Order: sequence, then structure tokens, then C-alpha cells
Amino acid sequence: MSYANQWYVPRDGLTLLPDGGVTSAAGFKAAGIHAGFRANPQKLDLALVVADEPCAAAAVFTQNVFCSPPVMVSREHLAASGGVARAVVINSKVANAATGDEGLRRARCQAAITAEAVGCPDDEVLVASTGVIGVQLPLENFEAGVPQAAAQLAATPNAALRAANAIMTTDTQAKSCAVTFDGGSFGFPGQVFTVGGMAKGSGMIMPNMATMIAVLTTDAPLASPDLSVALKAAVGVSFNKVTVDSDTSTNDTCILLSSGAAPGSAQTSDFAESTPGHAAFTAALTAVCTALARAMAADGEGATRLITVNVTGAATPEDADLAARTVANSPLVKTAVYGNDANWGRIAAALGRSGARFRAQDVSIRIMGIPVCEGGLALGFDEDEALRRFEQPEIAIDAHLGAGSAAATVWTCDLTHEYITINGDYRT
Amino acid sequence: MSYANQWYVPRDGLTLLPDGGVTSAAGFKAAGIHAGFRANPQKLDLALVVADEPCAAAAVFTQNVFCSPPVMVSREHLAASGGVARAVVINSKVANAATGDEGLRRARCQAAITAEAVGCPDDEVLVASTGVIGVQLPLENFEAGVPQAAAQLAATPNAALRAANAIMTTDTQAKSCAVTFDGGSFGFPGQVFTVGGMAKGSGMIMPNMATMIAVLTTDAPLASPDLSVALKAAVGVSFNKVTVDSDTSTNDTCILLSSGAAPGSAQTSDFAESTPGHAAFTAALTAVCTALARAMAADGEGATRLITVNVTGAATPEDADLAARTVANSPLVKTAVYGNDANWGRIAAALGRSGARFRAQDVSIRIMGIPVCEGGLALGFDEDEALRRFEQPEIAIDAHLGAGSAAATVWTCDLTHEYITINGDYRT
Repeated sequence: MSYANQWYVPRDGLTLLPDGGVTSAAGFKAAGIHAGFRANPQKLDLALVVADEPCAAAAVFTQNVFCSPPVMVSREHLAASGGVARAVVINSKVANAATGDEGLRRARCQAAITAEAVGCPDDEVLVASTGVIGVQLPLENFEAGVPQAAAQLAATPNAALRAANAIMTTDTQAKSCAVTFDGGSFGFPGQVFTVGGMAKGSGMIMPNMATMIAVLTTDAPLASPDLSVALKAAVGVSFNKVTVDSDTSTNDTCILLSSGAAPGSAQTSDFAESTPGHAAFTAALTAVCTALARAMAADGEGATRLITVNVTGAATPEDADLAARTVANSPLVKTAVYGNDANWGRIAAALGRSGARFRAQDVSIRIMGIPVCEGGLALGFDEDEALRRFEQPEIAIDAHLGAGSAAATVWTCDLTHEYITINGDYRT
Repeated sequence: MSYANQWYVPRDGLTLLPDGGVTSAAGFKAAGIHAGFRANPQKLDLALVVADEPCAAAAVFTQNVFCSPPVMVSREHLAASGGVARAVVINSKVANAATGDEGLRRARCQAAITAEAVGCPDDEVLVASTGVIGVQLPLENFEAGVPQAAAQLAATPNAALRAANAIMTTDTQAKSCAVTFDGGSFGFPGQVFTVGGMAKGSGMIMPNMATMIAVLTTDAPLASPDLSVALKAAVGVSFNKVTVDSDTSTNDTCILLSSGAAPGSAQTSDFAESTPGHAAFTAALTAVCTALARAMAADGEGATRLITVNVTGAATPEDADLAARTVANSPLVKTAVYGNDANWGRIAAALGRSGARFRAQDVSIRIMGIPVCEGGLALGFDEDEALRRFEQPEIAIDAHLGAGSAAATVWTCDLTHEYITINGDYRT
């Protein structure tokens, strides 16, 4: 089973594709090649995703003050094209961040070179870069590599996998996923739509690397504003709920393209905001984003386990997020999971300092389903049974605050010796 | 040189005592004994600090929602006594946190047992506990131990050191410090006052341990409200600026007692808020708290280096704190220091996501005095020279945001394999 598919959470009405990815939806091709950004010729380092026709597009970007030139250029292009895109070009190894005006010029060249190879206006190309901060992009790698990638474009699972490989930095696994859903629930029975994508990132901030990047594609016909609404909703409960080492990088980019090329495709209006079609699409997109996000957390730097923190009973959604995020970011909670230690005191301490409003005596906590704290007090539990449950690849922490009905889920990974080794090394 | 004295920052008008501690100020005695909280009879685990006469007292406590019974009892007693205290009794090994009504009852007994041994009302005893969460205090250890400690009370440096040792958990070094200052600057030349204290905490939250605890003493005659003002000011720029693994525990307690017993002591009114005397006292208290706080960061779990993050040029003090704290809490910055890596990209990324308001192009960053980023862009620097400077025990990171004139300093330590080993172990 593909790596991201391992972390897929089944949902009614959706079918997971065994080899799904960024080319599963009709109308998209991809390629991943070695273009010389990396020294090792075996390593892919340039990904190209191209739509057969101009697409409706939407994107969300990093909120970091240090936002990188590729982010600025992609924002500009989406605005200039009115939400239309034909291609996405991504390199690894060099993030083109903190590179100033020269970096901005080079990001524009990256788009222009791609536009020429694909045959579209510059502003229909979106760009992303990931890797070392403070180094200028070598444009010659795009000049030679992009035409070569364009010549290899294919709609096969293998092409999608190569593209997903080309955007990896410290990721140990390529992350691709796709689902299909049927139009029956909104009046088009038998009409099948696909949503797929790829992502990279084994921390929201990499070492001296930067970036989480995701490219998502669909053949459901959505207009750009509707894509944008669906993307924000899906990202809000998936990529934005992942934390490996605390937060967003300078380059975080998540792009969604709609070809509308599903065979016998339904009318665009059926996917407009607030329609049943939009809801069905958003659910499918959320499922794909969640699988990719969970895969990112599970593949966090040095991780041995995925940690899922569920907070329920919060006074507000903001409180729920704050509480879940504080637990997920706690080095003490993360090292306890690494040590197979059902240490609820560390969870309680993190909840207590999170800023979420609740009373200690109303809190209950379960670890892997085992009640360990009730009414703010310790519960006796079977330590051997807890140890057995820690052998699972996913560790569930559930905290009920008893302060309301809001809930949030945040994903992270354990904090290990290997994380220190990866991030404590000299830059190389 | 004593451990905390190594981290003392000299200030005009203050004299550092070579063996200073909680008994340096006139009018205080201390003891540290093994009372059976710990299994190993070589380990001290009960500290007692007693004033010869009832003292003016002030304290600050954890803001954590899960606040422990000893914190509740100390708050109650300070309120009931109107800011008067005679003794502080502290045990290690058992935190008496998340122990409910029974825990509260036992904290009150802890105080009552001490009151009887010392010969004062219950509400003149302040209590603190540090250690494992969710376990009830063994009262018999206080019943046997407190009278024994009371019999050993002494004003010697050795007694102060034993008390500082008895409150340690994962600390590797006892932390004691004291300074003297002369009354000349506020009209009492030749009149010498002393401020000293002890602290524990090698993380603001311990593993399954809880707590930072500090007991500070002075023979300068201050009334309780004036002590409170000085303590809040000093703690705000010292203990509250330390972060090892993110935040306050359930038991954090910092107590300040004034005996007014300096030989030939000046009048109380000379130390009232807003007087030159108060300013001189606050400066001395801040110096002691800062040395203890820096010692706590330097002795952070698994630490090999103290990291000092200075942010200047911020729009507001809040922005400065937010920026400095986000850098200091970044696992990527902390692992980079461990790896002797002058990785300013990680510092920039942390500043950028901190929420502090500034423009990327206005930022400059120095690491150990070496300019590495100017105007938001990379500067070439001598990597060999940087490596040499990383051999120092204290690593300075200076960031200027170019957005105003506010500044903040936060202390932390590097994040190491040993941290993971300490915190990833099973509870024992």
C-alpha cells in the first residue's frame, strides 16, 4: 500500500484509489526528473504538473513574514490570471527564500521558462521551491530540465509518483493519494469525479530547508472562487492541523487545480459554494488532504509514531485548537510517546498552560483508549496493557475539557534521538 | 565558583558573594535533609527555610489551570496572614499535583507539621512540592523529617547549599546566589543589605516531574506590598524569561521573604515603591533572580550550552518577548546550536512566524557577534570563526527587527540527544 494510503481515514461515499496521485484526475499529466539541483544524479529534484487545458486554480500560502519569492510570484500570477493556471513547477534543494530582488527575478524566470515549454502565458504557471534558505536558484537547471520534464509528461501513476519524489527534502517517503466520489448524492448518479494530489514536508519548518508543498488536482468542474472556498476548508482541518516542530515555514504552498475534465462532466454550477455538490467535493478534498497531512506527521523528522491529539468538550473551536496544538507541540508529550510512557501528567500540564478555558476538575484524558485521568485526577490503569497499545503506529491522545462542545484534532509525531541527529548536523 | 555564580551578570553597585544563598541575608536559617521521600538515603529531599522572626512575604505562582494543592495552600496562607511568613517547607520527589481534595488536606498538614516544629501559626508557613504528578504526599515523612530539619537549622553557606540540594529533581547542579548592595545611593552610606536565594528547575515543566521553585530572602526591610512589586518586576525579566521546554508547570512557585534584620537596619519607608531604595533593592533582586534563571536554563535537561536570545528594535515589549520566545522555543534553533550550526535561516523562520510585527527587509541577525543576516538577506561569514565561537558555554543570538525600540532577552538551552534520553525514559 502506498505510504499516504496507509494513513487514509475511510469516509462514506469515497473510494480510495490504490495508486492515486496528482494525475489520477482526468486532464492532468506530471513528470519528475533529475535536473541537477541535487548532486546525486539518482535523486529527482524537479517536478512538473501540467493540465491539458487552462484550469481553474486556487492556493493558500505561508503566513510567515519571511515569505519567499516563489510564494510572491505564485500569488501575483493567480491574481493576474484571474485564478487560471496551466502548470506548476517545483524544485527541491534550493528554497529561494531570503534571496531578495534577485530571488524574485529568478522565480519569475522559473515561471517563464516553464510557460515557454508548456506553451502558455507566464501567469498561468505557478512556482514553488524547497530546500536551503539564502541561496539563489540556479536557472540553468530549469533551462535544461523543464523541457526535458515536459517531454516526459504522462498521466500514469508512475509519473505521479516520480513528481511526488522530486519534491521531497528530508521526507523519507513520497506522499500521493487520490479518491473518487459519485455524483449520486447531488443528482448525477454514475458520474464519477476524482480528487488527488501529492505533498511533501516532514516538518512544517525544515532544518535549514523550508517548506510544506502540496499540489492537488480534480476533474470536478469548479470555478476558482469555489475551489478557494473548498481548499481553505480542507486545509484548515488537515495541513493546518499538522505540527512537527511548531509552525509554518517561509515557503508553505498548497495549490488546487480543477480541469473539469471528468468524463461526461457535470455542469460547473453544481459545485458552487453551498450546494450539495460543493459539500461532496469538499469532503473528498478534505479526505485527500487529511491522508497527506497525516502522512507528513507520520514521516516527521526522526518519527517512529504518528500522534493524533483529539480535544473535545472545549468552549470554542479556538480553545479546542489551542489545547490540541499545545499538547501536540509539547516536547515532553512527544518524548513520552517515544518512550512508550502513558504520562498523562505531561498532557495535563500542556492543556493547563495552553490558554484554553476550562476547570481542572472537569478534565478527562484517555491514551490509546485507556482512561488515565478523570475529573482532573489520576486513574489507576494497567501499565502492561498501555505498553502493548504503544506498539501501534498511531498513538491516540483524547482529552475532554468539559467546558463546551467544540472539538479539534491535531497531528504530530514523537520526538526522538533521530530528530536531534537530523537537525543537529552541520549544514551540508 | 558556585554554579549559579558562573551565570551571574555583573551590575554596578552590587557585590556577588562567593558562597551566597538563601541564608546570606541576616535573620534566616535553612536545612536540607533526607526525609524518606526518595529511596536513596544519600539524596536530600526536604528543605526548610526559617526566619528568626515573622517576615514580610510575597510570592508569585504558576498560571497553569492545573494548579497544585501546595500552590493553593501557600496562596491561602499569604492572604490569611496578610503577607507574613515565618517558614518555607519544600519536598522533592512527590509534586502533590492532580491529587484533589486529599492532596489539599495533605498540603495543609505539611504546613501544620512545620508550624508546630517552628512554633508559629499555620498560616505563617508556605509550602511547595516538586516531583511526580498524581501521587499523594507521604505525611509521615514530614512528621519525622521536619523536626529533624528544624534541629539542624543554620545560617551557614553549607546549610543553604543543603537546602538548595534538597529541592533538586532532574537538576544536575544546586543553584544558590546572593549579592549585597550599599545604602549610599539612597541616603544610608555604609549600610549593607543582602539579597539571596535558591532555585530549582531544569525545565519549566519537568518530565513527569513538575516545577520551578525559588525561595529568595533579604534583610532589607520591605513591607509585603513593596516586596510584591519588586518580586513581580524581577521575575518578569528573569524566571519568566527562561524556557526549556515551553512553559510553566502546575507547581511553579517563587517566594520572597524580608527579615529587615540587616545590622543597623534602615527604616522601612526607605524601600517603599517608587523610592530610590526600592529601585536599588529591585536591581539587586533582579540580579540574583537572573543568575538563578540563567543557571536553570544552562542546567536545562540534557543541555550543553546556555542560549541567550536578545531581540531589539521591536515595535512593543510584547512583540519583543514574542519574537525572542519563539526563537528560544524553536527545536530547530536549539538543535542547530547543539550542532554548532550558525543556521540563521531557522532563526529568521521563527521570527517570521512569531506574530511580532516587522518587515523581513528590516531584520538583521548576529550569532555570537557575527553578522549573518542584514536587511533580511544572507551575509557571507567565516564559518571557521563561527565554529570557534560555538565552543563557548553561552551562545548569543541577537536579532534586530527594525520596527521600533522595544527589547527582550529570553534564555534557553540547546536540544540534545540527552534531552530525549532523559524524557523518553519510562517513569521510574
